[in-house]
Amino acid sequence: MNYLVTGAAGFIGSTMVDRLLADGHRVIGVDNFSTGRREFTQQALKHPQFQLVERNLLDATALKGLLSPETQCVFHFAANADVRHGLQHPRKDLEQNTLVTSNVLEAMRLAGAKHIAFSSTGSVYGEASQIPTPEDAPFPIQTSLYAASKLAAEALISAYAIGYGIRGSIFRFVSILGERYTHGHVFDFIKQLRANPHQLKILGDGNQRKSYLYVGDCINAILCAIQHPTNEPVEIYNLGTHEYIEVKKSADLICAELKIAPERTYTGGIRGWVGDSPFIFLDTKKVRTLGWAPELSIAEGIQRTIQFITTNPWVLEARSEL
Amino acid sequence: MNYLVTGAAGFIGSTMVDRLLADGHRVIGVDNFSTGRREFTQQALKHPQFQLVERNLLDATALKGLLSPETQCVFHFAANADVRHGLQHPRKDLEQNTLVTSNVLEAMRLAGAKHIAFSSTGSVYGEASQIPTPEDAPFPIQTSLYAASKLAAEALISAYAIGYGIRGSIFRFVSILGERYTHGHVFDFIKQLRANPHQLKILGDGNQRKSYLYVGDCINAILCAIQHPTNEPVEIYNLGTHEYIEVKKSADLICAELKIAPERTYTGGIRGWVGDSPFIFLDTKKVRTLGWAPELSIAEGIQRTIQFITTNPWVLEARSEL
Repeated sequence: MNYLVTGAAGFIGSTMVDRLLADGHRVIGVDNFSTGRREFTQQALKHPQFQLVERNLLDATALKGLLSPETQCVFHFAANADVRHGLQHPRKDLEQNTLVTSNVLEAMRLAGAKHIAFSSTGSVYGEASQIPTPEDAPFPIQTSLYAASKLAAEALISAYAIGYGIRGSIFRFVSILGERYTHGHVFDFIKQLRANPHQLKILGDGNQRKSYLYVGDCINAILCAIQHPTNEPVEIYNLGTHEYIEVKKSADLICAELKIAPERTYTGGIRGWVGDSPFIFLDTKKVRTLGWAPELSIAEGIQRTIQFITTNPWVLEARSEL
Repeated sequence: MNYLVTGAAGFIGSTMVDRLLADGHRVIGVDNFSTGRREFTQQALKHPQFQLVERNLLDATALKGLLSPETQCVFHFAANADVRHGLQHPRKDLEQNTLVTSNVLEAMRLAGAKHIAFSSTGSVYGEASQIPTPEDAPFPIQTSLYAASKLAAEALISAYAIGYGIRGSIFRFVSILGERYTHGHVFDFIKQLRANPHQLKILGDGNQRKSYLYVGDCINAILCAIQHPTNEPVEIYNLGTHEYIEVKKSADLICAELKIAPERTYTGGIRGWVGDSPFIFLDTKKVRTLGWAPELSIAEGIQRTIQFITTNPWVLEARSEL
């Protein structure tokens, strides 16, 4: 079958591309390489069924000629995935996450493509009043420009699903870990410790509780869900493990894996940054009833991430992304 | 005090302008006159404390020089308020409601203005599972591009409130009725019946249940809420009466008021159009605990609307808005 993947050179997008090719499908990958890495597409580029297209999705015509009614599904992973620095560039999330999703949906509508799978975020629950948080938790207040932009994209997908008959599969991720991981706190910790193994600065008081999911399990969950169509125009699924971990405990795991014992400093406060949620833990019953279950624990996901970064230290190199 | 009102020539915006001026405040009104009516600003323009500025808020610099830390509150009413025809122009709601709100927020941030009051909609509850629907109802699925664009604007306001300290007061309206009413089903019914008093076409099966609020009560509720600051960066209030009415019953009221008995035809189905909610009825306990209560019933609001339209038939004249 034919698939299109946006953000095809990114962490999760490139992993999906490799998986779809391995499963025998034809894949068009789109990326603007603003944060995507050419290295992540090398394996796919050897495959005759893969086509990589460099386009800026803020251009409304970017997907022209790439979609058709034969496009089985558009996996829309292209995004500004940096939650923490949103306040430094107040327009970026709106552009990269909301407007780009609008452009993808319009291109799909015009080309007759009928199914979008979208990487949303558990951050849309803000500081959730119900934990573990189900998909139909009380209507939340947005706490970051990132989550606001993803919620706006979800809303557009739902309106297109109901208005134009484009099926929507929306996935609210916890933080994803594993091979090709290139941002987030595990990345930051390893980067700090490789620069100076004696010091580790931790944002907040370290008691923030977060949930993580291994990228392979994330891909399995998405593919499982889209293979189970329902009668609803749009379905929303939380994706995560049935665990959470304190930020200081994940520092313990990283230090143990790297066999170091740095002095730790904490910036203080219950949040890592303005808009950070002190406790993210999603109820994943809905996707589990489809038969999916994660294969790796949070600790195992962190181990795989460390192994990847230590064998691929080039991912730590500074990028001028902001 | 100093206030800025966007959509100052619109139905609700112009009513707010007149009220603020009557209360002794200085008001800057902004409108692009795409759907605003110059007639609605005539009363205000006689007032020495009113300044009317014609600007397009899609231009990010539109509010430059109009805001300052002395701006007590920005009442942001400018919007595409046409819910029903959203699917005919899939980008319009995103531009006029989401992007314009982003521009207003950025202008406020840059100028140091610290409070926004925003006209959102009960449509963000989609087809609500809980009726009457409270502000913290289960996380809804968006059913229209209009509601999606308003939810996106709400999310931006919340993120700005938490990230930049701009206080947000968000009002989720039912349909508003009264003097200067220029769109919606009561408007459409009267327009049809003035053209042909023997025929009335009703969208859907007429059993849709809707709630309405008189514009004077809407203004009172907004002013009541903003005069009760809380410790939360953002507060959301439903606005409506504690009643609802079937669409065919509101047709009864209109026909009785106009003293006619047209033959009725129904387009059929439980919804008036794709994305229409068959039952909108909001729980307004939150704003009522502040001391506000509506003075007019739905029936009285409809009467006032008919009186206004029959004495101001020019509002029925065709506009090329789409």
